[in-house]
Amino acid sequence: MNPFTFQCGTKMIFGAGTESQVGQELVSFGATKVLLVYGGQSIRRSGLYDRVCSAMTAAGLSWTELAGVVPNPRVSLVREGIRLCKENGVDFLLAVGGGSVIDTCKAISFGYYYPGDVWDLVSHSAQPGDQRLPVGAILTLPAAGSEESDSCVISDEKLKIKGGFGSPLMRPVFSIMNPELTCTLPLYQTACGCMDIMAHAMERYFSRTKNTEVTDRLGEAMMKVIVHNLPKVVENPHDLNARGEIMLAGTFAQNDLTGVGREQDWFNHGLEHQISGFYDIAHGAGLAISFPAWMELTLEKDECVEKVAQYAVRVWGVEMDFAQPRNTAREGIGRLRNMIKSVKLPSTLSEAGIGTERFEEMANNLTDVGKSTCGAFCPMSKEDIVRLLKAMQ
Amino acid sequence: MNPFTFQCGTKMIFGAGTESQVGQELVSFGATKVLLVYGGQSIRRSGLYDRVCSAMTAAGLSWTELAGVVPNPRVSLVREGIRLCKENGVDFLLAVGGGSVIDTCKAISFGYYYPGDVWDLVSHSAQPGDQRLPVGAILTLPAAGSEESDSCVISDEKLKIKGGFGSPLMRPVFSIMNPELTCTLPLYQTACGCMDIMAHAMERYFSRTKNTEVTDRLGEAMMKVIVHNLPKVVENPHDLNARGEIMLAGTFAQNDLTGVGREQDWFNHGLEHQISGFYDIAHGAGLAISFPAWMELTLEKDECVEKVAQYAVRVWGVEMDFAQPRNTAREGIGRLRNMIKSVKLPSTLSEAGIGTERFEEMANNLTDVGKSTCGAFCPMSKEDIVRLLKAMQ
Repeated sequence: MNPFTFQCGTKMIFGAGTESQVGQELVSFGATKVLLVYGGQSIRRSGLYDRVCSAMTAAGLSWTELAGVVPNPRVSLVREGIRLCKENGVDFLLAVGGGSVIDTCKAISFGYYYPGDVWDLVSHSAQPGDQRLPVGAILTLPAAGSEESDSCVISDEKLKIKGGFGSPLMRPVFSIMNPELTCTLPLYQTACGCMDIMAHAMERYFSRTKNTEVTDRLGEAMMKVIVHNLPKVVENPHDLNARGEIMLAGTFAQNDLTGVGREQDWFNHGLEHQISGFYDIAHGAGLAISFPAWMELTLEKDECVEKVAQYAVRVWGVEMDFAQPRNTAREGIGRLRNMIKSVKLPSTLSEAGIGTERFEEMANNLTDVGKSTCGAFCPMSKEDIVRLLKAMQ
Repeated sequence: MNPFTFQCGTKMIFGAGTESQVGQELVSFGATKVLLVYGGQSIRRSGLYDRVCSAMTAAGLSWTELAGVVPNPRVSLVREGIRLCKENGVDFLLAVGGGSVIDTCKAISFGYYYPGDVWDLVSHSAQPGDQRLPVGAILTLPAAGSEESDSCVISDEKLKIKGGFGSPLMRPVFSIMNPELTCTLPLYQTACGCMDIMAHAMERYFSRTKNTEVTDRLGEAMMKVIVHNLPKVVENPHDLNARGEIMLAGTFAQNDLTGVGREQDWFNHGLEHQISGFYDIAHGAGLAISFPAWMELTLEKDECVEKVAQYAVRVWGVEMDFAQPRNTAREGIGRLRNMIKSVKLPSTLSEAGIGTERFEEMANNLTDVGKSTCGAFCPMSKEDIVRLLKAMQ
């Protein structure tokens, strides 16, 4: 285990109907004038919008609204949010939605205090300062884990680039998590979310750092919860218990509890950001295509086999093949592929309508100036990445 | 899963040599005048005392000292600490030690602002207020989990009563966790600590609340870490990796991460507080005597068998006996007993020199006025408790 510092003070408020507490939570965290940020019509149709507004009114709060957040959230809307905050004296950002909505709030939160354009923060040409507007969340989509994480991902829709930045101050101050709000999510979104949660655990899990038993087991626990509960939700989308387990696992898989004290990789997220930057596919769908193919490629390196075999045994219940651990590892990857197929996520780039035209460009972007490889568990050269993309075809 | 709120903002600073950061952490949390609280000579002999003082001096801090904390920490020393804080204008409490030292600081922290005698808080005849002196910890003994927990346990050495109180404001603001500091712990203390950690996970795990998969698996993960790493430390007390895993598991087993959203029991802690209140034995030793006997008694109730069998299979790797799940459960309890014996903890009250003379009194205390039973997973009548104590003989 490597030395580390971990601090996650987000107040998690979990359970049926907890969105009714949002007014009192906002007041207790010092809010007076709120920017209410959300996506489209779904929170209006479900009645959530009305419940949130009632709770804020009852708490004596006033607010301004910013609607229209889309998946792979856009920097143009972040700029609009910063403008609204300045014009209206906003002192608190309330995200009602999934990761895209929360990430939009996080970017506004730091962009508000940054004197230049907020893209400087996303592109790492400037560092976030130590001032930010506090963010609270009402989570409606378990996936990104943004409700407790210390980072955000934002896209420039014109440049077709996805970037991200983080800060220890970026974690939401509270997160309201009512699994009921997720029961009406379509299967595809649910499956994409679960793939994202699995990926958050896996990007941390596949590490060469030794002696990471606590965090390995925490990660395995969260992955097993997804493996066990996603089929229940496919069977019955209104299985509130399974929805609750997925929601909680999604938070713990990404607040870095499972990642402390180890070198993390994040190659698959980097690759997926290239793919969804160019093609605007769902993040979870991109991860479903890349992760199994990447895991197979790691098995070319002897040093990677043990960990993938451990994953197969502990997460998927594969029986260990002591003579041929690689077979064990492959069986685990096969079971992940089966899960992906069973929930109708794409397994190949061609299924997602993506051609070969950008393979070189994506590989170049990932191994740009001065870097010959990318990734830590399995360092990937430009040629490896192109080979991987071909295997994903 | 039941609705819940969870918030744990303690900053965990983990790794070799991290105690050298204590000065800057104290300053960053606003300390100017510190009360340095510790036990006996061991931190002086090890050089830790000097390193802590150097770090505080370098950070420009001044401090007053309170030494002499003993296991089952005493209210008389808490009173002395409150007096020292008032006389010296102390604004921060630094605990250097294990749970007893941290708990002493926590009690001082709230007692400082309470106008009456601090025992009122311990005995629940008054509630802690919303003011407290902040507490930071340098952990030297993984056991109580007090480095992130929101409660403390204090004894009245004259009345021979152990009590405890808690508050969401009671969690330490930082915890410095250097596994090196634990390498010189004697086997007996290490084993007592590991038994306490297992017990913290088990008191939460054995619950009748259904649909608690995330937290079941988190608890199992922490228990498996202890089962796997305690023998390594017995083999080689200087196994820094195993010491680190135990230290981290100890924190996560007690910060309530594994306990949210469920009815917890805590019968064994209650019983052990009776035992160590009367006989002043080590807390972990008392738990080693009570827990396996209590688990066997729970198997008298059909409703308890499934969970104990799950524990046996998932924590101890027992093969499930589908025809006779009780046998599976018993095998798990047997393996816990074997671990306890292998690390030379007492298995019976008589081994610990405790007679039958207080059985009735302890059972009475646990089922006092108006309560016919005590415990949630397996409600215990006064007669059950006496029967259990006899089984522990």
